[in-house]
Amino acid sequence: MSEPKSKNIVWSESKVEAGQREQLQGNKPATLWFTGLSGSGKSTLAVATELALIERGINAFILDGDNVRHGLNSNLGFSPEDRTENIRRIGEVCKLFCDSGMIVFSAFISPYRADRDLVREKHPQGQFIEVLIDAPLEVCESRDVKGLYEKARAGEIPEFTGISAPYEAPNNPEITVNTAQHGLDECVKQVIDFLELKGIIPSA
Amino acid sequence: MSEPKSKNIVWSESKVEAGQREQLQGNKPATLWFTGLSGSGKSTLAVATELALIERGINAFILDGDNVRHGLNSNLGFSPEDRTENIRRIGEVCKLFCDSGMIVFSAFISPYRADRDLVREKHPQGQFIEVLIDAPLEVCESRDVKGLYEKARAGEIPEFTGISAPYEAPNNPEITVNTAQHGLDECVKQVIDFLELKGIIPSA
Repeated sequence: MSEPKSKNIVWSESKVEAGQREQLQGNKPATLWFTGLSGSGKSTLAVATELALIERGINAFILDGDNVRHGLNSNLGFSPEDRTENIRRIGEVCKLFCDSGMIVFSAFISPYRADRDLVREKHPQGQFIEVLIDAPLEVCESRDVKGLYEKARAGEIPEFTGISAPYEAPNNPEITVNTAQHGLDECVKQVIDFLELKGIIPSA
Repeated sequence: MSEPKSKNIVWSESKVEAGQREQLQGNKPATLWFTGLSGSGKSTLAVATELALIERGINAFILDGDNVRHGLNSNLGFSPEDRTENIRRIGEVCKLFCDSGMIVFSAFISPYRADRDLVREKHPQGQFIEVLIDAPLEVCESRDVKGLYEKARAGEIPEFTGISAPYEAPNNPEITVNTAQHGLDECVKQVIDFLELKGIIPSA
């Protein structure tokens, strides 16, 4: 981490007591950090899990390429430096959502271990939950819902994760969901079960 | 706005229906964008109003120098370009919080009208509420809770808003709160009354 450029910043105190937000929200805060190859099912699983939570009365929110790459990070590209800054900013936003009491999903490839570990370090203990969305490259490529693998194989997309750029899987993810072996409902259940087990959401 | 650098981004659909978040949160989403001189009372009023909302059962969250300048925007300084990027990023984060159903406060000087107007344009109609925290420069300077005016007058802080850099007040803020004339409780009431009037929060 470089020295912050921001000087002359003084911290003020929130008057909200610990526990007040948790009581209002009905959950403990958490970042569910989905990582995996393009086509592994990150967004699909995030959308389905978000809905499952909301139907249980727990608000949750997804950060993904749709709302971040078109907004906050629209001035970043896909160079290694920009990818790192992309993940750094998303991690900081996740932390803000946690501070607000929410459960937030991050659904980005986030291929570099070091970038994800920095986000983990920024979070209070237990609030960062790394979820490996696991599917073999062949399966992801055969899905190719966005036609990106075809473009990458044709050389039209440089530095495409899994083809021409590395993917560094987490060493010790809190959850591993295998979307090639299990259907969507089962995958959602695995995430929800973990959240119940950890007391982040109440048992149904 | 420059052309986004992000390419090959496909939009996916959230399965959450309009109204579901509002029902869960008990409020309509809103960005309360506090703008005003250093020492005008932005953070103090935001902290008190956040607490008032939470005590009414409505979750809310503050973005301010404390949690943004030390985190998301720690790689930005105070040059005109960095100030603009600072406000752009904060505006995008506010919009994300609105999309999640929350009421979010932004408590930054945000001296440039054009920067604030860009944030307004990013928000759906009615969700961006500009709150001018109004107090004469002499009053702000006499408070000088952070000792910044003294440093600015001594030339130790360049480009300090109100002293050596301009402050462009909003032309048509949704709310103007005069913190030199009114006590904190009255100022909180003015903001809460507006939120009730607009149906953003239920009447007490």
